Amino acid sequence: MIRIGIVGGTGYTGVELLRILAGHPQAEVRVITSRRESGTAVAAMFPSLRGLYELDYSDPAGVNLRDCDVVFFATPHGVAMAQARELVGAGVKIIDLAADFRLKDPAEFERWYKMPHTCPDLLAEAAYGLPEMHREAIRKARIVGNPGCYPTAIQLGFLPLVEAGVVDTEHLIADAKSGVSGAGRKEELGLMFSEASDNFKAYNVGGHRHHPEIVHGLEGVSKAPIRVVFTPHLTPMIRGIHATLYARLTRADVDLQALYEKRFAGEPFVDVMPRGSHPETRSVRASNVCRIAVHKPQDRDMAVVLAVEDNLVKGAAGQAVQNMNLMFGLPEATGLGTAPVLP
Amino acid sequence: MIRIGIVGGTGYTGVELLRILAGHPQAEVRVITSRRESGTAVAAMFPSLRGLYELDYSDPAGVNLRDCDVVFFATPHGVAMAQARELVGAGVKIIDLAADFRLKDPAEFERWYKMPHTCPDLLAEAAYGLPEMHREAIRKARIVGNPGCYPTAIQLGFLPLVEAGVVDTEHLIADAKSGVSGAGRKEELGLMFSEASDNFKAYNVGGHRHHPEIVHGLEGVSKAPIRVVFTPHLTPMIRGIHATLYARLTRADVDLQALYEKRFAGEPFVDVMPRGSHPETRSVRASNVCRIAVHKPQDRDMAVVLAVEDNLVKGAAGQAVQNMNLMFGLPEATGLGTAPVLP
Amino acid sequence: MIRIGIVGGTGYTGVELLRILAGHPQAEVRVITSRRESGTAVAAMFPSLRGLYELDYSDPAGVNLRDCDVVFFATPHGVAMAQARELVGAGVKIIDLAADFRLKDPAEFERWYKMPHTCPDLLAEAAYGLPEMHREAIRKARIVGNPGCYPTAIQLGFLPLVEAGVVDTEHLIADAKSGVSGAGRKEELGLMFSEASDNFKAYNVGGHRHHPEIVHGLEGVSKAPIRVVFTPHLTPMIRGIHATLYARLTRADVDLQALYEKRFAGEPFVDVMPRGSHPETRSVRASNVCRIAVHKPQDRDMAVVLAVEDNLVKGAAGQAVQNMNLMFGLPEATGLGTAPVLP
Amino acid sequence: MIRIGIVGGTGYTGVELLRILAGHPQAEVRVITSRRESGTAVAAMFPSLRGLYELDYSDPAGVNLRDCDVVFFATPHGVAMAQARELVGAGVKIIDLAADFRLKDPAEFERWYKMPHTCPDLLAEAAYGLPEMHREAIRKARIVGNPGCYPTAIQLGFLPLVEAGVVDTEHLIADAKSGVSGAGRKEELGLMFSEASDNFKAYNVGGHRHHPEIVHGLEGVSKAPIRVVFTPHLTPMIRGIHATLYARLTRADVDLQALYEKRFAGEPFVDVMPRGSHPETRSVRASNVCRIAVHKPQDRDMAVVLAVEDNLVKGAAGQAVQNMNLMFGLPEATGLGTAPVLP
Repeated sequence: MIRIGIVGGTGYTGVELLRILAGHPQAEVRVITSRRESGTAVAAMFPSLRGLYELDYSDPAGVNLRDCDVVFFATPHGVAMAQARELVGAGVKIIDLAADFRLKDPAEFERWYKMPHTCPDLLAEAAYGLPEMHREAIRKARIVGNPGCYPTAIQLGFLPLVEAGVVDTEHLIADAKSGVSGAGRKEELGLMFSEASDNFKAYNVGGHRHHPEIVHGLEGVSKAPIRVVFTPHLTPMIRGIHATLYARLTRADVDLQALYEKRFAGEPFVDVMPRGSHPETRSVRASNVCRIAVHKPQDRDMAVVLAVEDNLVKGAAGQAVQNMNLMFGLPEATGLGTAPVLP
Repeated sequence: MIRIGIVGGTGYTGVELLRILAGHPQAEVRVITSRRESGTAVAAMFPSLRGLYELDYSDPAGVNLRDCDVVFFATPHGVAMAQARELVGAGVKIIDLAADFRLKDPAEFERWYKMPHTCPDLLAEAAYGLPEMHREAIRKARIVGNPGCYPTAIQLGFLPLVEAGVVDTEHLIADAKSGVSGAGRKEELGLMFSEASDNFKAYNVGGHRHHPEIVHGLEGVSKAPIRVVFTPHLTPMIRGIHATLYARLTRADVDLQALYEKRFAGEPFVDVMPRGSHPETRSVRASNVCRIAVHKPQDRDMAVVLAVEDNLVKGAAGQAVQNMNLMFGLPEATGLGTAPVLP
Repeated sequence: MIRIGIVGGTGYTGVELLRILAGHPQAEVRVITSRRESGTAVAAMFPSLRGLYELDYSDPAGVNLRDCDVVFFATPHGVAMAQARELVGAGVKIIDLAADFRLKDPAEFERWYKMPHTCPDLLAEAAYGLPEMHREAIRKARIVGNPGCYPTAIQLGFLPLVEAGVVDTEHLIADAKSGVSGAGRKEELGLMFSEASDNFKAYNVGGHRHHPEIVHGLEGVSKAPIRVVFTPHLTPMIRGIHATLYARLTRADVDLQALYEKRFAGEPFVDVMPRGSHPETRSVRASNVCRIAVHKPQDRDMAVVLAVEDNLVKGAAGQAVQNMNLMFGLPEATGLGTAPVLP
Repeated sequence: MIRIGIVGGTGYTGVELLRILAGHPQAEVRVITSRRESGTAVAAMFPSLRGLYELDYSDPAGVNLRDCDVVFFATPHGVAMAQARELVGAGVKIIDLAADFRLKDPAEFERWYKMPHTCPDLLAEAAYGLPEMHREAIRKARIVGNPGCYPTAIQLGFLPLVEAGVVDTEHLIADAKSGVSGAGRKEELGLMFSEASDNFKAYNVGGHRHHPEIVHGLEGVSKAPIRVVFTPHLTPMIRGIHATLYARLTRADVDLQALYEKRFAGEPFVDVMPRGSHPETRSVRASNVCRIAVHKPQDRDMAVVLAVEDNLVKGAAGQAVQNMNLMFGLPEATGLGTAPVLP
């Protein structure tokens, strides 16, 4: 059994980790921390977990995480890097669901997250936890920076086109729509039911923290420079991201369907849909799958890619467990096989 | 492995059976029928099941169900009774998710479902599939009539009060609220998104088919006659039933909390919440649990019971699998242990 | 033109007042206050009002409300009573959308709202703003306590039965379902989209502030004592209250339909639906109408009343404007005639 | 008073016309037809209209529309053109909310709507009912083809850029999200609450009927050829369209904000939001306004335009009334001034 610690387990990624790990045959959650809820039973906080966990939240100050095999950070940005050195030194692996280990350049981290990076050396060794691009690095890593929800869907969606070098990489467009849970479990006016329901809006059109993550991820597989216009939208649904991606084709003779099927052949969690498909977010609800369809409308020079994921699973906690499986030499899909919930 | 047939697998109870059985270690779905979708792959119809089922829908006319160990009928009312005799004769067990084997009186069946009952003898031997009330009968049954979604929550909610004989059973009130999936996967104007969203209404206040089922179920455990006012409401959510139950107490000295905890002690799928709780439907989303809280507002003579379930799971497909487990001597919770999906 | 002041205009009742008054031919909103938003343009805060209001929010400290003809308080409880004496002394009428002038007994106010009442004499003279019960008092009042959203629907629904003395008034049951906007425009975890969507729950089953308001309102028209079990529920919709009311009939010979039609004949904002109807909340969305249907299921001894309203209109701002019309001698429906928004 | 006929008044555009016209001071709806609902009272069909209309639906076969001043067709495609000649001959003006008079080329109409056009001469004289582009033609027209919902938002959004000739018109991208009511009031599986709620998907990526309408509309104001990739998406909300538009700038020195403000100065129903805004669909709910914001992310060579409208109002019935006002010489905003409903 893998002994697991979860730091910051009251947010949506935390409770989603608990949900997924409850069905993982090799996982044993030993400790979960929350400053505010210290002493509260997990099952009192989340009645959905009644009968599945006996655990209480512990005060982070008084807890020993060094006896864990792996610690997940489901915390605000900045927490993981403050504890990483000590844990890694004690032989504990780290999977950070926040942004501390996503951007390789500490200066860029500081620009977008408004705090200095406190362990650039660990940042340098950390693996970026997108298995479809960095599987081998993840297997060997002590620290994994789990990708953001938007960057997961958008990178997976653009990946075959950019790798193949068949599109104008300086004018990529990512029009992405997210369910409200993507913003986290926090009291914020714009996220209230009466504000977000029966409504649709774009936000942060001028710049979003996930933008550099997307750009750098794609730069790693591109010979040409990457420029992306990224427009996030808030959608009145709980879970789900739908990325609609546009790229101008620089070659007319590419069989896009074959390109995608070949690139993702054998991937347990990327499903290339049949030609002409329109994947729906609910088709992956509560599952770790990313479904992708690729179109070439009116057979012109534009590829349109549709990629859907559950932002809390493949976009967060599920991918984190997928990474844990890789880091511990388990079959990659262990504990991640439950069927999507539809309707 | 239990060899399973599903008749009528394109509705919500059908696809929910498929979702649950995909994670059941002893289940093997061998055949699934649909007249309209004959030849279509299950995974083409429900992309959420891509990678989980290789099966195609078969034409009911050309299929041999006698090689199955059990057949689930996820069909309109009337289909199961037409095939029951042949299947039972061939040693196949039957679990009917429609109403053919719910009401013991054929005349009453005919009154509510507008068709004669064609096998009253099999009706007489069939078990009513509410394990918390009829576990032993289910274990031995060849035919199980799986309860309606409302009757499950309402009977479980009233059960301790009625069994204990501490309420006026002639003035029970069941104010029940259902998600839209309870009406099935059918094109009906009132169930359209633009009609049912951001809206709330009662329906069938004058009489609902589940009414006799509730009354007779409770009569079985009551010394006094049962009369229930049952008001169903359509609620803008996909899954979930919330039953708010009112019963006038005939004794002042009953410890309601203790009564409920004792009655359901050991039940794997009934969770009596702590005193003062308000269970939410989402706390059981996609799971087979029914959560119940009991209140006595202002310490007067009225008990108020709150019972929630997922109408497609404990209210349909999950309870059907629970019944299958009982009928085949498996641990009752086999394949039904996944955590509720929240948020 | 009626010169209008609005104190606390950033909540849902405030913006709803602005929406309604924008179409009122005799209304001129002269001043609107908000401590936090002082200096912000109303139309910057609520883009839906762009082009309809040039007004900025004023700091309540620096504003002169005595030049208004009427001041609406769309504030937390306790604000209106602090300013009432000065305003009334200056000849300004007051309509309080909070609870300061709803409960006649200052001790009871204190018990439920956890603060002493600071002007019991004004409380004594204030009219309770439910025109269908207190029209004449409202016409003459200097101060109107605008009813709560639940009490409006529930009192109107029970009114004919209680006035006629044909039900057991000691065992009334009000099972009420409210849209989320009823909780106000405030950041609260349980009101977040990801918490309240696709979910249904009861709350405050042990006691709700609107309970005494309902009881006392009905006591005013009843010869017998009033006892009500009141169960509020949170429903995943923005606007709307659906009250399902149960009362045991003490006489068998009452024509309920006729009773309701007669009681509300001529009322501009109460619509008694035809026999057998199931009013939907959306049928009154954004309008001041309360629609009511009355049933007698299976012709037994229980009346079931279904009453729907828009909690922000008839349950708050619309009723406040209806009261203003009465207080200023205008036709009661002035500015309140726009059609409900459906779908 | 303008004597009005509505053909096909049971769909969403029909009931929305009734809602808007109920508040129009010069409108008198004299007749409304429906084959299926002939004899039914409008207010029985739509209880939201109780008290506002005494009218019954008439059988289209038996009704005389020639006494009307104007007839709105809120029908399936093909109905208006079958009756146009007779009505126009009798001096009746026509506003068609379907597609019969939108596409100038009869062959193209036939290709997309799968029926021959039966009156190409009338098609030639018909005005395209987008007042912001064709106001003078509409004033003089006998027949107006009311624009589609997507084309209204998308054309208005692109208009200033295309007119000014500052973008690459051969690579325009329109990523559009529509509420479910845009698909009409019809029983269709994908539009059911349980299918469309908590879900997001693209559809018709390969080609949508509104595509040629958008292209030809923009060609009318462009010197260069127009090519658009148009991706419609189904969004879990009742009303609202959000168009996110992308155009590559061919000049670096354009002040986009000024360009938009100037182009739409004086327009009663186009609201250019302040620099940096993100308009929300709910800010125009139930109103005829289209709100637009224009961005230039990271100051590069791409313009991103956000345009929102209520698909049933500015995208259908409201624009139809705006056109009627123009055709009858009334102030353009008559009857269209009610405030958006928010929340």
